[in-house]
Amino acid sequence: MTLTDWPTITDELAHLDLITDPTGVAKLSLDYYHFSPILEKKLQDKRGNLVIRPVNESEVLQIAKTCVKHKVPLTVRGAGTGNYGQCIPLEGGIILDTTKMNQIRWIKPGLACVEPGVKMAAFDKKAREIGWELRMAPSTYRTATIGGFIGGGSVGMGSITYGQLRDRGSLRAVRVVTLEDEPRILELRGDEVQKVNHAYGTNGIITELEIPLAPAHPWVELIVVFDEFMTAARFGQALGDSDGIVKKLVSIHAWPIPSYFTALESYLPKGKHCAFVMIADYDLEPFQDLVKEYNGQVTYQKTPQEASKGTSLLEFTWNHTTLLARSIDPNLTYLQTFYFTLERVEQMYHHFGDEAMIHLEFLRFHGKAIPAGLQLIRFTTEERLNEIIRYHEEQGAGIANPHTYILEDGGRKVIDLDQVCFKEKVDPYGLMNPGKMRGWLEREKA
Amino acid sequence: MTLTDWPTITDELAHLDLITDPTGVAKLSLDYYHFSPILEKKLQDKRGNLVIRPVNESEVLQIAKTCVKHKVPLTVRGAGTGNYGQCIPLEGGIILDTTKMNQIRWIKPGLACVEPGVKMAAFDKKAREIGWELRMAPSTYRTATIGGFIGGGSVGMGSITYGQLRDRGSLRAVRVVTLEDEPRILELRGDEVQKVNHAYGTNGIITELEIPLAPAHPWVELIVVFDEFMTAARFGQALGDSDGIVKKLVSIHAWPIPSYFTALESYLPKGKHCAFVMIADYDLEPFQDLVKEYNGQVTYQKTPQEASKGTSLLEFTWNHTTLLARSIDPNLTYLQTFYFTLERVEQMYHHFGDEAMIHLEFLRFHGKAIPAGLQLIRFTTEERLNEIIRYHEEQGAGIANPHTYILEDGGRKVIDLDQVCFKEKVDPYGLMNPGKMRGWLEREKA
Ligand SMILES: Cc1cc2nc3c(=O)[nH]c(=O)nc-3n(C[C@H](O)[C@H](O)[C@H](O)COP(=O)(O)OP(=O)(O)OC[C@H]3O[C@@H](n4cnc5c(N)ncnc54)[C@H](O)[C@@H]3O)c2cc1C
Ligand SMILES: Cc1cc2nc3c(=O)[nH]c(=O)nc-3n(C[C@H](O)[C@H](O)[C@H](O)COP(=O)(O)OP(=O)(O)OC[C@H]3O[C@@H](n4cnc5c(N)ncnc54)[C@H](O)[C@@H]3O)c2cc1C
Repeated sequence: MTLTDWPTITDELAHLDLITDPTGVAKLSLDYYHFSPILEKKLQDKRGNLVIRPVNESEVLQIAKTCVKHKVPLTVRGAGTGNYGQCIPLEGGIILDTTKMNQIRWIKPGLACVEPGVKMAAFDKKAREIGWELRMAPSTYRTATIGGFIGGGSVGMGSITYGQLRDRGSLRAVRVVTLEDEPRILELRGDEVQKVNHAYGTNGIITELEIPLAPAHPWVELIVVFDEFMTAARFGQALGDSDGIVKKLVSIHAWPIPSYFTALESYLPKGKHCAFVMIADYDLEPFQDLVKEYNGQVTYQKTPQEASKGTSLLEFTWNHTTLLARSIDPNLTYLQTFYFTLERVEQMYHHFGDEAMIHLEFLRFHGKAIPAGLQLIRFTTEERLNEIIRYHEEQGAGIANPHTYILEDGGRKVIDLDQVCFKEKVDPYGLMNPGKMRGWLEREKA
Repeated sequence: MTLTDWPTITDELAHLDLITDPTGVAKLSLDYYHFSPILEKKLQDKRGNLVIRPVNESEVLQIAKTCVKHKVPLTVRGAGTGNYGQCIPLEGGIILDTTKMNQIRWIKPGLACVEPGVKMAAFDKKAREIGWELRMAPSTYRTATIGGFIGGGSVGMGSITYGQLRDRGSLRAVRVVTLEDEPRILELRGDEVQKVNHAYGTNGIITELEIPLAPAHPWVELIVVFDEFMTAARFGQALGDSDGIVKKLVSIHAWPIPSYFTALESYLPKGKHCAFVMIADYDLEPFQDLVKEYNGQVTYQKTPQEASKGTSLLEFTWNHTTLLARSIDPNLTYLQTFYFTLERVEQMYHHFGDEAMIHLEFLRFHGKAIPAGLQLIRFTTEERLNEIIRYHEEQGAGIANPHTYILEDGGRKVIDLDQVCFKEKVDPYGLMNPGKMRGWLEREKA
């Protein structure tokens, strides 16, 4: 490895917004990898050399040119809220922070076009002015960027209706800057976007995205509590399957998970299991009938106006559940699981008992509402964690492992040839977020 | 049976809008029962004695009082487009035609309140002014009434997203006039509405309905053709399962069914199987990628503006398919089938060949997109028809038999105790649409 000439690089890019002080760079080198004790050990010392915050595509192009010229690694960073070290530079280099590229190009019914650094909640505020909102968003909605969600996220509120980010239609078009000898701007549309969708920024810097929107219903936020966990889980499935009830969030928590939600203590009776939901306000009446059918008890109900003021229930769900639980018990970690069926949920509930506290998020998977899990795991050793994963997989559950920073080892398990081939084209020197794509590493070995 | 004193009855109601001439009464005594050769024989001679067209609830109340006083049967009629003789009076009596009760009480985001005689297309025109539309509607949308759809219908365009009329949430509240000794007005809300939902007007005259609405997307209408029938069917399932594509209609037709659509001849190549779909215009791009994946060919595409002018593709789907086919070959009849799976569709396709031409409508059934069939059957004998039904049922398909006018024998098969008990209360003399509810007939026998 040749030594990188940082003074020259910094000079070349001096007209841009640079961060060079080590504390600043350190802060922008990390994400929420520490949810995993495995990743924590591996990633805590990783740092970039230089952070740059471009304000537009032409500045991105200049950065790309400099990176290629000096063969320095480039890692794109949105808000840095990823959980698997997606934006942590394994081999140092430049960190391209997109947060200043936060222009909304246009919003029209059903579709919008944005720069990658637009924050999701800020976007929705604008979109709601014409009656629309994002189809799906993570629980980091208030801080995370749209580009980061596409680059490293997968599902969130809204997924109970619109499925996953990887589904056809969830992303319509992207502009990407390449790291070829002569960096270019490419536009990918339709199915072509899968080449860069959820690729951890390994094959192109996204500078613009076209995304679909959903009608912005007035969402009522409710908590419903149940005596039995499996009744709560069945209620979640029934709500997911209720075609006559428009909803955005169906999140189920086995006791003692609710005990970690201290801010909501008065709504969460001791020992009870709970559902956190968002329901279109005009569908409250059938929703209440469903609650009655499952002997649930509504303990909390906020109108859309009230909900938009205080803390949204969203911030107790998805991976915020893990965040809140870990703030009380740092020994906790988590898993991401496609149970697919309630039978499997029940089996795991009994099998692991207190070691794996079940937190379900219902989402649409190829058209069907299924229970997915973000179980809280009482961490002991890496071996035991792997044993738990293996057991789930043996029983037919799918695990999207959050304890690896390798793209393919997390979710899809298989190498995505389209993405590897695209990387060959747009990043021939393997400069983008090096070390994250197994398909590329194996190609380098071969 | 005592003789009915028609002169006195007519006198009592003389201030209302009456039709007494036999041709007028005959016309308003029948519906589209003739799609079934079995029902045709049984029902063609049935007639009411008197048609009344009330303009409001208080007139309905007067009619109810007269019916109870004289113990004359009362059959409610909307537009009379039912297919099972739902509104054909088996024992004569008064026909209460709702078409003059066509006031829209209010429309607000997500919900509306209407009188029963409001026509669906007329309603949508109004609702679209504020960006909303009916969640589901039959292919008789232009002529049928909302009250009649609730009283005798079940599914239609929109069902691929919002499920069936019988699903919780599809009907929110009703006001009904009873035929008690002292007729009353009752309001049913929430799950309670199931007491009168799809009851063929046997247990209360609905005078007002509260119904949920859907965001009115701009729907593009398309025809896609395929070489293989099962590819078309799989395409339909995939579209139904595509959470990222907002749609309203997924209708699949095996050749030779398209040959009956003479008005669309130029878009329907000979021997090819076709899909008729409605897609939200902002989702056309992913839709086209899906078409490509299944090697389909788009032969027809109308923008929402164009579609709203000419004949909608809707009027080639659902039971309009049967209507058009029968206009060319009156020997055809049909079945209504829940195949549930494509495997079963394929098996039936091969098993019956030309005798049962497969027409699928995809709809959501408890949260899952499933293929339902309105197969065209080449009718020979009643025995053979029953044999075909039996075979389907033996193979696990559900048949909603359109060859019976008995409520329970059509769809649900089982007696709905809630509905029978409610009838006991609101129609103690069994005057409402007599002879249609098996649960009541058996109770009378016992
Ligand atoms: C408490 C908590 C809750 C969470 N809940 C959810 C959840 O509900 N659902 C979910 O999916 N995730 C969730 N996450 C993970 C994460 O917050 C989201 O995926 C979020 O959308 C990431 O956005 P970001 O801006 O922080 O991206 P970053 O973490 O900055 O980046 C993510 C990845 O995208 C790449 N990237 C970013 N911008 C670009 C670009 N312009 N071009 C190319 N690549 C780019 C980065 O290189 C990185 O690999 C959660 C995380 C936490 C800590
Ligand atoms: C070509 C064709 C296509 C069709 N397509 C579909 C389809 O896609 N989906 C579908 O579900 N159906 C379909 N149908 C059947 C029918 O058109 C619909 O169900 C339609 O909604 C019925 O409305 P209507 O006003 O004609 O009702 P009617 O036929 O007049 O009445 C239907 C039933 O409701 C009762 N009723 C009517 N008004 C009231 C009231 N105010 N109170 C109490 N009871 C009442 C009547 O007594 C009767 O039993 C089709 C029929 C035809 C001929």
